[in-house]
Amino acid sequence: MAREFTGKFARNPQLNSNGELHHLLSIEGLPKAILERIISTADSFINVAEREVKSVPLLRGRSVFNLFFENSTRTRTTFEIAARRLSADVFNLDITRSSTAKGESLLDTINNLTAMQADMFVVRHATSGAPYLIAQHVAPHVHVINAGDGRHAHPTQGLLDMVTIRHYKRDFTNLTVAIVGDILHSRVARSDIHALTTLGVPEVRAVAPLTLLPTGMEQMGVRVCTRLEEGIKDADVIIMLRLQNERMQGALLPSAQEYFRNYGLTPEKLALAKPDAIVMHPGPINRGVEIDSRVADGTQSVILPQVTFGIAVRMAVMAIAASSKVMH
Amino acid sequence: MAREFTGKFARNPQLNSNGELHHLLSIEGLPKAILERIISTADSFINVAEREVKSVPLLRGRSVFNLFFENSTRTRTTFEIAARRLSADVFNLDITRSSTAKGESLLDTINNLTAMQADMFVVRHATSGAPYLIAQHVAPHVHVINAGDGRHAHPTQGLLDMVTIRHYKRDFTNLTVAIVGDILHSRVARSDIHALTTLGVPEVRAVAPLTLLPTGMEQMGVRVCTRLEEGIKDADVIIMLRLQNERMQGALLPSAQEYFRNYGLTPEKLALAKPDAIVMHPGPINRGVEIDSRVADGTQSVILPQVTFGIAVRMAVMAIAASSKVMH
Amino acid sequence: MAREFTGKFARNPQLNSNGELHHLLSIEGLPKAILERIISTADSFINVAEREVKSVPLLRGRSVFNLFFENSTRTRTTFEIAARRLSADVFNLDITRSSTAKGESLLDTINNLTAMQADMFVVRHATSGAPYLIAQHVAPHVHVINAGDGRHAHPTQGLLDMVTIRHYKRDFTNLTVAIVGDILHSRVARSDIHALTTLGVPEVRAVAPLTLLPTGMEQMGVRVCTRLEEGIKDADVIIMLRLQNERMQGALLPSAQEYFRNYGLTPEKLALAKPDAIVMHPGPINRGVEIDSRVADGTQSVILPQVTFGIAVRMAVMAIAASSKVMH
Repeated sequence: MAREFTGKFARNPQLNSNGELHHLLSIEGLPKAILERIISTADSFINVAEREVKSVPLLRGRSVFNLFFENSTRTRTTFEIAARRLSADVFNLDITRSSTAKGESLLDTINNLTAMQADMFVVRHATSGAPYLIAQHVAPHVHVINAGDGRHAHPTQGLLDMVTIRHYKRDFTNLTVAIVGDILHSRVARSDIHALTTLGVPEVRAVAPLTLLPTGMEQMGVRVCTRLEEGIKDADVIIMLRLQNERMQGALLPSAQEYFRNYGLTPEKLALAKPDAIVMHPGPINRGVEIDSRVADGTQSVILPQVTFGIAVRMAVMAIAASSKVMH
Repeated sequence: MAREFTGKFARNPQLNSNGELHHLLSIEGLPKAILERIISTADSFINVAEREVKSVPLLRGRSVFNLFFENSTRTRTTFEIAARRLSADVFNLDITRSSTAKGESLLDTINNLTAMQADMFVVRHATSGAPYLIAQHVAPHVHVINAGDGRHAHPTQGLLDMVTIRHYKRDFTNLTVAIVGDILHSRVARSDIHALTTLGVPEVRAVAPLTLLPTGMEQMGVRVCTRLEEGIKDADVIIMLRLQNERMQGALLPSAQEYFRNYGLTPEKLALAKPDAIVMHPGPINRGVEIDSRVADGTQSVILPQVTFGIAVRMAVMAIAASSKVMH
Repeated sequence: MAREFTGKFARNPQLNSNGELHHLLSIEGLPKAILERIISTADSFINVAEREVKSVPLLRGRSVFNLFFENSTRTRTTFEIAARRLSADVFNLDITRSSTAKGESLLDTINNLTAMQADMFVVRHATSGAPYLIAQHVAPHVHVINAGDGRHAHPTQGLLDMVTIRHYKRDFTNLTVAIVGDILHSRVARSDIHALTTLGVPEVRAVAPLTLLPTGMEQMGVRVCTRLEEGIKDADVIIMLRLQNERMQGALLPSAQEYFRNYGLTPEKLALAKPDAIVMHPGPINRGVEIDSRVADGTQSVILPQVTFGIAVRMAVMAIAASSKVMH
């Protein structure tokens, strides 16, 4: 029915015609109300994780398939934990060894798994857009969660950052948030910027050398800073990005030492931020490259709580998507 | 006790002395009554799979070990889903990395796993007969399910084909069934022919070039057709086989293009069959080699329902075997 | 609080300040009362394993992470079975493919997994002492079980040997126990000697060629025998060790044939032991190298029951550790 009103452009493929979250593909395009619902649902699951019995029956009897076309043990494990704490049946497919290796197409693989009565696919793929393609073709009752597609998006990582910020800062509307590091290659940075902007953060800063900054930052409402000192001055939240090893040997950066000297977060530099500023990092951290161990292990670091909140937010996304109405 | 009466030949190793299914090793030698019981039990499980909570407690507390000496992600996954929907505890052993790599014999491995209180082994092995060897040596209460042994048998695949045919055609006794493709190398074809004959199908046709036909087809009660047009004429059921890539480069076939021209199922050729004929394929399909996409995705294709029925039939086999009495 | 009283040396890192088992790192240093509690708890779980429903709810809702930095399918499987029979949620991490491969430190990996609300780590690592390092750094409520660290210890294997001996011999205080084979490289031998001595076995013998004997055996209260005949004479229990293939080609041994001639356990040699002596082996066995098949498969062999008891003892260790009080 909604299709009659969408006109020339298809409606947001993540939402059903009721406007409910049906797939999670990207933070881009998620309305503020849905972001806020995910964050507050995640908040309620944080308590579940601290109980001795850590499960709730919201997905009992549902089948969740982890389809990791690209290997990521940590992300896969957090999704598996999240799904099992929701009491789902979780199946990890060793895709690299499977029929796709026999030349079967991605969509034929998906169709086959759907015929095994999958209710939800958690997809990680090296190709940007692969989860969209899958979402377009699955049966109406099936949900697709993007667990990272190429350089495009990693929405649950962005969402866990929002849960973390809300947990420590309560309110988004008076914050200064600095994102520091390899913004050019980071799907986390992209997701974070969209979420922060949507949630009303008045100042988002992208802090990086020019070689690691994408163009068009200003149009996204982001202030660009090429010096770390300027970028973190009076910040409430500092999100450090991981520096991929392969960048350090490339033409984009002179050396890891030089990078650390200019952009590594040390206690001295952290002192420029607000006294109660929190330090975040998506992990795994490179100690002594993008972050000093005294900061990573210090009192302002919330890097490990981020991991805990990551499971809560994945539970939230799965529970909300699974509760959406199937529209035909 | 039964042993006294078996005389010179051992009784069917799949059945206990009560004639109940204890192991599933091959469709060859299964009495019609057992085939029919498996098919009708599978039918009842199809409904389970469509419920929101997809599990039944028939194997609660039992331990099922997936022993895949040969890699097959899809088949392993369907058995895992089936066992978990029966509420069994399923353990996937990475056999290629295990003690067998340290030189332990197959039977020592099996004895060790049995000592871990295994109740059922699902075995896939490159060597024909390996599941028989295992079945002969396990403790009396342990069940062995063959998930594919060499070129010999793949009985649950054959059984799911029977469930599919019964689902769409209701009755076997007035059907014409054409099996098309690489019959020589297909363990599915072998299983299907045994099952169809036992279930009373009056006309089974083997359709293939002479280089891909085993000898002795006529003695099995099968009509041999070397032309596709003749083979599928007025057929009720067409079972397309997968063409292994390695055959196409060998001496058995000129080229994939030539094979498709002669044996590929196109809408035009399908028109020669009965108007309500169904098209089956064990998957994964090679689009444009053995089957045209318009047929694979067309209204007569039941390829994806076969996958669904495959889980139901594996549930049925496990549930029936596990309910057999232990005879000493 | 306990720390104030520990003086110069840290207290046993396996016990909490109440003296309860909190981690299992090594049999060395475990008080006799704790050894006996583990053995009798394991005894009670043997019966659980023989029931049709093999699980108890002692660890329901707890998360157990299998961290196998060194591959061992069999040991990992027994721990997984044990944890699942205790109703825990078990997560197998493919560590070789994970973030540690991206250069993350062991302790950062552990901290991350702890942040995922791990309750227990089962650790196997090629480096001696790795489980100690982990135990020193985990949060107070987390338990660490050593599943084998380098050449140092493999305590659950030693404990299952004790469960086996108690099962068949009832009392330790009048036994003669012979440990035969590659004692120099065996972490099982080391664990066994500590446990047997602690439990009051009056005569423990180390039986091996001089090249496979460590120094200092006598100081551990062990009688050294370089001839098999002398070593097993009138023994109640014979523990055969596995001969690693790599030793046979090295300078330590002339050949597998020569080793078998001198130290292989044959029925003839076994006749020198007590008539009701039991024969044990940690598996996988090398038939015809350290043990004759007639002995391995004979009536005095308890090699397969050892596997069964191995699951019971792992259940016991996990259940006891998980029930220890968290001390701050």
